[in-house]
Amino acid sequence: MRTVFHENLDELNGQLAKMCGRAGVAMKSATHALLAADLSAAEQVITAHDQMVGMRSDAEQAAFALLALQQPVAGDLRAVFSAIQIIADTERMDALAVHVAKIARLRYPEHTVYGEVSDCFAEMGRLAVGLGESAQQVLLTGDPAEAAHLREQDTSMDDLYRRLFSLLMSPSWDHGIAAAVDTALLGRFYERFADHAVEIGRRVVFIATGALPPEDDISTY
Amino acid sequence: MRTVFHENLDELNGQLAKMCGRAGVAMKSATHALLAADLSAAEQVITAHDQMVGMRSDAEQAAFALLALQQPVAGDLRAVFSAIQIIADTERMDALAVHVAKIARLRYPEHTVYGEVSDCFAEMGRLAVGLGESAQQVLLTGDPAEAAHLREQDTSMDDLYRRLFSLLMSPSWDHGIAAAVDTALLGRFYERFADHAVEIGRRVVFIATGALPPEDDISTY
Repeated sequence: MRTVFHENLDELNGQLAKMCGRAGVAMKSATHALLAADLSAAEQVITAHDQMVGMRSDAEQAAFALLALQQPVAGDLRAVFSAIQIIADTERMDALAVHVAKIARLRYPEHTVYGEVSDCFAEMGRLAVGLGESAQQVLLTGDPAEAAHLREQDTSMDDLYRRLFSLLMSPSWDHGIAAAVDTALLGRFYERFADHAVEIGRRVVFIATGALPPEDDISTY
Repeated sequence: MRTVFHENLDELNGQLAKMCGRAGVAMKSATHALLAADLSAAEQVITAHDQMVGMRSDAEQAAFALLALQQPVAGDLRAVFSAIQIIADTERMDALAVHVAKIARLRYPEHTVYGEVSDCFAEMGRLAVGLGESAQQVLLTGDPAEAAHLREQDTSMDDLYRRLFSLLMSPSWDHGIAAAVDTALLGRFYERFADHAVEIGRRVVFIATGALPPEDDISTY
């Protein structure tokens, strides 16, 4: 009975890691769509979200079945309990990539962002993809030290997010209102993507140790 | 044994409803802080979030204990499974109210928004508070018809969100970049608050019927 449970749990963890990996790929494509004004890349990210919704539903059913049929306790229960939360995080990460892609599509054939702001998003994209990969990795290894490290990676994202707002609020901003609005929202989408990756890290620490690290403070924006 | 379980489950549902109610009150105060440039109201919303984090932790522990000690099945398991997700929604709703309050605090003693935009936020605030109250109500009644109705309430929020962006993107916008950025982000905070209330409604339908209503499409912004 325990063996079946652990096989099923491994399978569920594999689903979570796959969802997280897909969200990372989606954010990579969405960032490319944004920076290169690539309509077909944007469309692809938007269309692919349906599959993510299906994966969410499958993973939730698998987690539910594990609880209903196997009634896990202790560390095993922590793993399934946390999986329910992680499923939501990964789908949300993918939805945030869709938001980025939708802004790129809205502005096509124009570019959405230029110059220094564009560089900022290139870097935020790299960080987001890196955080997605790290989150996927810790879902597979379950290593709490590695999971806790996700928060440190996120501080670079917070720095970039602040830099973006200092560019936006500077008197020298000369890209107009629509670009300012796009920039602010895009910044938030990247920052939230990173927050969800950090949240996955917190949950992996909880699975391994039984103690949930404290949440970060809420930023002003 | 069943009786103890149902007592504990009622208690957990009471915690969820209380969290949802607090998030609604927080959004009401944050909207007041925003529209009246009331610093102390803003500070109060921001400070009170710590209690919400504590309530989240308590509710998660209660849900975990219900699974570990009582090993529920069928409808009872659906209730605890969904509680895990609803806990996250209610805390997020409160965090979104904090975001609104933080923008009000950042701009104090100035007002953040004026004229038609201010009217829009007054209405979005009313809708958000209404959705929070409806979500709290369906958590207590468990009525799936009432829960499904939350989605209809949300369409008015979507309409206001679109109106806000048409104001923002109009050539007659004359409030400058910072106000545009604040307006876009604030709009998103209200819209996300409403989405979480709708999500709670979906989960209540699932608890009652075993079938989860489909998700809404992702908006462009």
